[in-house]
Amino acid sequence: MNNKELARLLRSLADGQISVDDGVERLKQLPFEDLGIAQIDHHRTLRQGVPEVVLGERKSLEQLRIIVAAMAKQDQNILVTRLDNEKATALCNQFPEAEYDIDARTFCLIQQKTKITGQGKILVICAGTSDIPVAREAAITARMLGNDVEELIDVGVAGIHRLLARQELLNEAAVLIVIAGMEGALPSVVGGLVAVPVIAVPTSVGYGASFGGIAALLGMLNSCASGVTVVNIDNGFGAAFAANRINQKKN
Amino acid sequence: MNNKELARLLRSLADGQISVDDGVERLKQLPFEDLGIAQIDHHRTLRQGVPEVVLGERKSLEQLRIIVAAMAKQDQNILVTRLDNEKATALCNQFPEAEYDIDARTFCLIQQKTKITGQGKILVICAGTSDIPVAREAAITARMLGNDVEELIDVGVAGIHRLLARQELLNEAAVLIVIAGMEGALPSVVGGLVAVPVIAVPTSVGYGASFGGIAALLGMLNSCASGVTVVNIDNGFGAAFAANRINQKKN
Amino acid sequence: MNNKELARLLRSLADGQISVDDGVERLKQLPFEDLGIAQIDHHRTLRQGVPEVVLGERKSLEQLRIIVAAMAKQDQNILVTRLDNEKATALCNQFPEAEYDIDARTFCLIQQKTKITGQGKILVICAGTSDIPVAREAAITARMLGNDVEELIDVGVAGIHRLLARQELLNEAAVLIVIAGMEGALPSVVGGLVAVPVIAVPTSVGYGASFGGIAALLGMLNSCASGVTVVNIDNGFGAAFAANRINQKKN
Amino acid sequence: MNNKELARLLRSLADGQISVDDGVERLKQLPFEDLGIAQIDHHRTLRQGVPEVVLGERKSLEQLRIIVAAMAKQDQNILVTRLDNEKATALCNQFPEAEYDIDARTFCLIQQKTKITGQGKILVICAGTSDIPVAREAAITARMLGNDVEELIDVGVAGIHRLLARQELLNEAAVLIVIAGMEGALPSVVGGLVAVPVIAVPTSVGYGASFGGIAALLGMLNSCASGVTVVNIDNGFGAAFAANRINQKKN
Amino acid sequence: MNNKELARLLRSLADGQISVDDGVERLKQLPFEDLGIAQIDHHRTLRQGVPEVVLGERKSLEQLRIIVAAMAKQDQNILVTRLDNEKATALCNQFPEAEYDIDARTFCLIQQKTKITGQGKILVICAGTSDIPVAREAAITARMLGNDVEELIDVGVAGIHRLLARQELLNEAAVLIVIAGMEGALPSVVGGLVAVPVIAVPTSVGYGASFGGIAALLGMLNSCASGVTVVNIDNGFGAAFAANRINQKKN
Amino acid sequence: MNNKELARLLRSLADGQISVDDGVERLKQLPFEDLGIAQIDHHRTLRQGVPEVVLGERKSLEQLRIIVAAMAKQDQNILVTRLDNEKATALCNQFPEAEYDIDARTFCLIQQKTKITGQGKILVICAGTSDIPVAREAAITARMLGNDVEELIDVGVAGIHRLLARQELLNEAAVLIVIAGMEGALPSVVGGLVAVPVIAVPTSVGYGASFGGIAALLGMLNSCASGVTVVNIDNGFGAAFAANRINQKKN
Amino acid sequence: MNNKELARLLRSLADGQISVDDGVERLKQLPFEDLGIAQIDHHRTLRQGVPEVVLGERKSLEQLRIIVAAMAKQDQNILVTRLDNEKATALCNQFPEAEYDIDARTFCLIQQKTKITGQGKILVICAGTSDIPVAREAAITARMLGNDVEELIDVGVAGIHRLLARQELLNEAAVLIVIAGMEGALPSVVGGLVAVPVIAVPTSVGYGASFGGIAALLGMLNSCASGVTVVNIDNGFGAAFAANRINQKKN
Amino acid sequence: MNNKELARLLRSLADGQISVDDGVERLKQLPFEDLGIAQIDHHRTLRQGVPEVVLGERKSLEQLRIIVAAMAKQDQNILVTRLDNEKATALCNQFPEAEYDIDARTFCLIQQKTKITGQGKILVICAGTSDIPVAREAAITARMLGNDVEELIDVGVAGIHRLLARQELLNEAAVLIVIAGMEGALPSVVGGLVAVPVIAVPTSVGYGASFGGIAALLGMLNSCASGVTVVNIDNGFGAAFAANRINQKKN
Repeated sequence: MNNKELARLLRSLADGQISVDDGVERLKQLPFEDLGIAQIDHHRTLRQGVPEVVLGERKSLEQLRIIVAAMAKQDQNILVTRLDNEKATALCNQFPEAEYDIDARTFCLIQQKTKITGQGKILVICAGTSDIPVAREAAITARMLGNDVEELIDVGVAGIHRLLARQELLNEAAVLIVIAGMEGALPSVVGGLVAVPVIAVPTSVGYGASFGGIAALLGMLNSCASGVTVVNIDNGFGAAFAANRINQKKN
Repeated sequence: MNNKELARLLRSLADGQISVDDGVERLKQLPFEDLGIAQIDHHRTLRQGVPEVVLGERKSLEQLRIIVAAMAKQDQNILVTRLDNEKATALCNQFPEAEYDIDARTFCLIQQKTKITGQGKILVICAGTSDIPVAREAAITARMLGNDVEELIDVGVAGIHRLLARQELLNEAAVLIVIAGMEGALPSVVGGLVAVPVIAVPTSVGYGASFGGIAALLGMLNSCASGVTVVNIDNGFGAAFAANRINQKKN
Repeated sequence: MNNKELARLLRSLADGQISVDDGVERLKQLPFEDLGIAQIDHHRTLRQGVPEVVLGERKSLEQLRIIVAAMAKQDQNILVTRLDNEKATALCNQFPEAEYDIDARTFCLIQQKTKITGQGKILVICAGTSDIPVAREAAITARMLGNDVEELIDVGVAGIHRLLARQELLNEAAVLIVIAGMEGALPSVVGGLVAVPVIAVPTSVGYGASFGGIAALLGMLNSCASGVTVVNIDNGFGAAFAANRINQKKN
Repeated sequence: MNNKELARLLRSLADGQISVDDGVERLKQLPFEDLGIAQIDHHRTLRQGVPEVVLGERKSLEQLRIIVAAMAKQDQNILVTRLDNEKATALCNQFPEAEYDIDARTFCLIQQKTKITGQGKILVICAGTSDIPVAREAAITARMLGNDVEELIDVGVAGIHRLLARQELLNEAAVLIVIAGMEGALPSVVGGLVAVPVIAVPTSVGYGASFGGIAALLGMLNSCASGVTVVNIDNGFGAAFAANRINQKKN
Repeated sequence: MNNKELARLLRSLADGQISVDDGVERLKQLPFEDLGIAQIDHHRTLRQGVPEVVLGERKSLEQLRIIVAAMAKQDQNILVTRLDNEKATALCNQFPEAEYDIDARTFCLIQQKTKITGQGKILVICAGTSDIPVAREAAITARMLGNDVEELIDVGVAGIHRLLARQELLNEAAVLIVIAGMEGALPSVVGGLVAVPVIAVPTSVGYGASFGGIAALLGMLNSCASGVTVVNIDNGFGAAFAANRINQKKN
Repeated sequence: MNNKELARLLRSLADGQISVDDGVERLKQLPFEDLGIAQIDHHRTLRQGVPEVVLGERKSLEQLRIIVAAMAKQDQNILVTRLDNEKATALCNQFPEAEYDIDARTFCLIQQKTKITGQGKILVICAGTSDIPVAREAAITARMLGNDVEELIDVGVAGIHRLLARQELLNEAAVLIVIAGMEGALPSVVGGLVAVPVIAVPTSVGYGASFGGIAALLGMLNSCASGVTVVNIDNGFGAAFAANRINQKKN
Repeated sequence: MNNKELARLLRSLADGQISVDDGVERLKQLPFEDLGIAQIDHHRTLRQGVPEVVLGERKSLEQLRIIVAAMAKQDQNILVTRLDNEKATALCNQFPEAEYDIDARTFCLIQQKTKITGQGKILVICAGTSDIPVAREAAITARMLGNDVEELIDVGVAGIHRLLARQELLNEAAVLIVIAGMEGALPSVVGGLVAVPVIAVPTSVGYGASFGGIAALLGMLNSCASGVTVVNIDNGFGAAFAANRINQKKN
Repeated sequence: MNNKELARLLRSLADGQISVDDGVERLKQLPFEDLGIAQIDHHRTLRQGVPEVVLGERKSLEQLRIIVAAMAKQDQNILVTRLDNEKATALCNQFPEAEYDIDARTFCLIQQKTKITGQGKILVICAGTSDIPVAREAAITARMLGNDVEELIDVGVAGIHRLLARQELLNEAAVLIVIAGMEGALPSVVGGLVAVPVIAVPTSVGYGASFGGIAALLGMLNSCASGVTVVNIDNGFGAAFAANRINQKKN
């Protein structure tokens, strides 16, 4: 709610077009909906230009039904992330047009065809086969947010030639999401090969002293390639959301 | 070195324009310079379009003298970060046209006037007065990389109205660098207010259980605002470099 | 056992009203009951004015049966926290008048109608839908301790307007319990908006680098809002108990 | 800024008493002052009824001079915490009526005589002689916020009779601030002896596996005494601020 | 194998009573038995005067069968610790005279009646009902090692009078094993009340920031009561073994 | 791809034996195979002289089938590590000549008889019976890589004579892999007894403050025996791979 | 204060030998002295039979002067630990008969000749030359508490024969204090060689991943030798105090 | 002391060539020298074929003088590591033929000319200029142990072409020591390029979330390149010692 809108509202008031009580109400009434268990923020689409997103983890099926139904009524696209298979099956029964990806654990309900609004291509790279679930979550999210997305799988640094052979692909991308577990070194190498934004995603792939992704996370935070930024462990969704913030033209 | 260049080189070889030995040499000879104590990568300017950057910390004055002199001969702009006051004084004597910022601990040698090549404004926000050194490092770096930069100081979340009063300023920015110590909550609030990229920088400001910035770092990695990305603790330089990757037009 | 009581006891002794042996016994015999597996402290009601509370976790059904039965005989109200569904069902069969809340995992046996003895309203706020179990545990505990309680759900800082729209509700409260997972930033914002006590409860909601609530815990301990205090991760009970200590009139 | 104030402002607007531009300005202009290096929040006194507080640590003498001078002009009382001896001496020269406590590292500038507005006595207890600096910071802060404060030093749990002998003192307090380093067990014992609020402060006193106060912090967070709340390590100021939130009558 | 034995062996050799080859063999052949999967150290009974002990955890039933059978052939008493119910049932079928304690998870095969060889009484104290499994493991182990053992349950520091009422019991003990989870404060209080050895055992009882017993472990390592020693988390066996080292007369 | 090969390729080009397009293709086409879900690096056998190795953990059965089948077609030997029993059974059905070791969780498909190419004997030592799975993984891997391997089980430092009795066996080995959980002290003792390379493997055997192998890992990293190197927790495969790097004659 | 004493006191009261007021006073007046900055516990000598001990660290010279002077008036022996050289010099000037050990950082004021009251010999063993300060603190403390003490320096496990050559010395000891930094393995080996109590002391000797003694601490807590107990990092005093608890005859 | 030596000794005894007392003495008297403050192990040269090595850190100048003098009398070469400049100057005065390297902090006293006994070349690689001290310590140690050593400086992974251009150098080495701070990714890339042993050394170079080298350490422990082994943070000495164990021919 910027100054212009505020001025217009106050002018209506000064002009007697709306009453003081209405003014108070209008200023107070921000565009979210109280479901008791959740405050759905329908206005975020306006503020950030994105579909409604729900974190599926830790929500009961009942809660998810209520929230998705409330969102669906607004005819918006809906993305539920980190949804387990069982709840997904139940939700898909309720919303038969939705699609569930078992690798990415994403539930997508498309009510308005997604348009490509992103300016360039987002390239999702991952170091190993085991990183695929995170890569898929990132790719699905980025596509749903209106971006052109390509994926490059299993190009970890212990076989550096596999990555170097794809330099052309790297060169084409406008934003790169680079996903790796274990020592998390891939973003450092990629960050040195391209000039565009690189978003690093540590994964919990590894064992022993990988500590569920901490080793990769620390590796990425300490990357010797300048200007690599990092999101939380296994957070493919967050990386895609950040890539979208970059890739959408600001107006 | 992309396919086109490779093809051109090989064609010269096939045409007999260069010898086999020269071809081997050309392919081997990548554009860096071996100083014994460092391999200066003059080619990075080409690859990433940036000035030469040197991490001043842990380098001896002798090493810095050798490295900066080698860079200066290429007529490039040079940025030395995390340089303490004592070494800075010595370096400034050697390069009198350089500028040292005592807060940011940055040494800047401008040999070619910096042009604004970034597309939008980069806004650097910090939560408290104690975060100023990190904010300044980010601002100086971003400017040196060719960006229009604005700063907003001391708008932490415990006095949320201080931030909300500047919504207009937030709305104008193309990229935001949000810097905070202690609980590191500012990027979450900012990330919810804007749709453009937000780069969070945790600082080591705080005491006790802030653990030198870990509390802020964890807070930012777990931000409930989607698509906030994070750099290392106190890494104002890295945040600016990332913001520049975003703000420069890819061609 | 304060000086006055001690003096009275000694006076009875000096007056020959009680024997030396009785005196020894009286001084030794503090008001707890030894069940072999537990020392029930019936006197705590006197000392702290609260119902009997049992931590259900890690106790076997057999142990719980013995302990609750011993407490029930004293006609006191009993609260069992962190009780899983299975043991709860068995206990509810034994004590049919008890109530079990499956979200909060609380078992309440009310034998004497709870009176509102707290001076003001306790407001329980949580950042997201996934924090509801902790919020519910806090609310049920606070009510059982004799307080007027209100709840406000899903007002996390990434959509700050959802919170600001409820300023009035915040203003009414005498004590606030503020619950959040992930980066745990909500208490910092709330602590800046009100002058009354704010008790922060980190939750284990989150993933990756949230480390089961550590990120939120550290965030709250380092809150830039002065005078926010913190309890253990997911400790809704403890927060309510602390709120009650504040809200009850000392006499 | 609550609804009533908003309604009053809008009514003035509707009545033509103030112009639209003025209304925008009034709504935007929240009561803080921009010093460039800091946003002083003069309104907090209104919102929270407290003096201006400045965290001295990590601020340069120059910054402190500017900030304190700006505050002093408003005739408010000023508390600077964590101020080292050297900067304190310089500040005291500038503000000769101020007082500096070398143990507590607090700088107090009293411009309006502090009135006791707190309802009961705040008792500050510490486990050992080495905890005195934190205890003193808490006591000075609490007094400056308008409370009656008493101190009890060196009553750690390894000599439990030293504490038990003071039960009467414990009984008189309305709020207790309990400070301990090493294993941090004192608040658990105190929390079991009183029914009023207990705020635990871990200190960095200890060595080896005390990890600069982490052992004490964890001990306090896991206190077996219900309803003990905790603040950051060595945070005497925060504990006093929290105690004051409790001890002031809400109106 | 001390000097005297060595001298005797060498004398036999010098006297021609044994051959060089036999000497080599005797010196090499230390008294353990190689089962392929384990080297059973039958000599430890001699060296340390204790029954054979097997850590049951992480050993397969097959491995346990082989090891226990080999030990049983030597007519020694056998203690298997941390044995789950399922394997215990199978082992008890094979060794019907053995006894399994489901709380302590101990399997005891008594082939030679245990004599009380310890000099004084070992008192096992625990803070809460949930600590009983660890207390039981300690008590069973200490008894099997030939000690007189008494147990005192649920005397945590939040109700300090429960402990103080048992001062007499404390006074009688020659060694105390003090077991506590959560903040682990009990050994500090006990250590201040008695002059005899106190062995502290942290337990994994607790939640959130208790980190599976780390909080209690740190509390105990930092005990302000001098001369409290600590064993690993939940290590009732180790505490009993240490208590036995103390309680047995050295000759 | 070294200089000589590069020169040869370029000479063919200069000689017109291959076209420019072919040259580009040849230089680009590094010897790996893109399966979509994985980039199999058939060239590693050439580069490192080893069989194909697949980390079984976190790969789905479908992924494993595709990858192993692609490898099998090259007639190479294949080792799948960390494969659970269920997937192993399915894979063994598909490749009936393969062998699965349930302790080591290794799947071995031998298509070309393994020759002993290692120069000396690799000795695998472990501290306790519970370390056997890691020891077995190391032994199987080392044998499959073409080494003579011996195992010594259950010679932990608390019964130091068990180890000392085997000094001869230690003396024979060319490389030692020393495996231990708990405090991980065995490599320090062994490292002081031999002059050849010692590779230490911490295991997750232990409980409480062993933190899943961290205690053993730290112990080994801080070994007072000079020149002991360490691999990740439970990483028997990695230790064997490192031992093989040492034991193979470089040519 | 046991039952007998309590009975005697009450009897005096019942007999009219003391008044009620005196009784209250006597029961309240526990034998400690309030110096304002410290509560000196003169009764501990009675309760635990030890000299007065003061932790010198974190106490100011002024505080130390007051405390030591108060203690000295009681004609008791006084031990100040962790006292730096500068404060020691000042204290020694005030108490010229005192002795300061610069390695151990201990200040000893002997006012009554120490008698050997311990039953056996306490052996202090350390792994390396760098552990000497901790060993010395332990030895001095143990001697001052009335024990016969011997020291064995630099017998770390990487040269295991140095320790084994001293088996006789080990056999003579009644209690062993085993001190080691780095991986802290020495107590495991010693614990396997003797049957008497072994107290392990981790030291902060080491670098990198020794983390100031954490590696050694964890190693000792996870010792595979049963019944080894542990004290805090560098806590030579605590180990000696514990050894004394063991070595003194209980009556 | 192997079986053959033992047999020979016993045979002399059986033959009456030495007495029983002498035999006891010979068996007891292992070749180390007791200096009171240290047990110098002159036999290690025999056991491991290396010069005497002393860790300079935490030893006083007096201790170093005694130890080095005792060693020097044996005419052996002596290496003191981690020696600060001040002590080095004093030691060099005492031993004028010694050499001190200020970067590596090594003191070398060569009394017998070092022969190259290593079989191949040891290559020491480091990622950045700031890693030079660790690289130098490794190089000096390896040379002193009798190896041919080469160094390659500043080839970190963010400019991967700098490393790839030196493939030939990598190919020549028999053992590689790979040193890196920050994210520690260099060993993963190198480990994929060569088949010979790779020893990774994490350094404390970095800031913020590098945690003094932990990030690099974890990265290396989790390397995706198989068979990379790791030593402690900044442990150039240990890496060189391990490389020497590999590079010396076993006989």
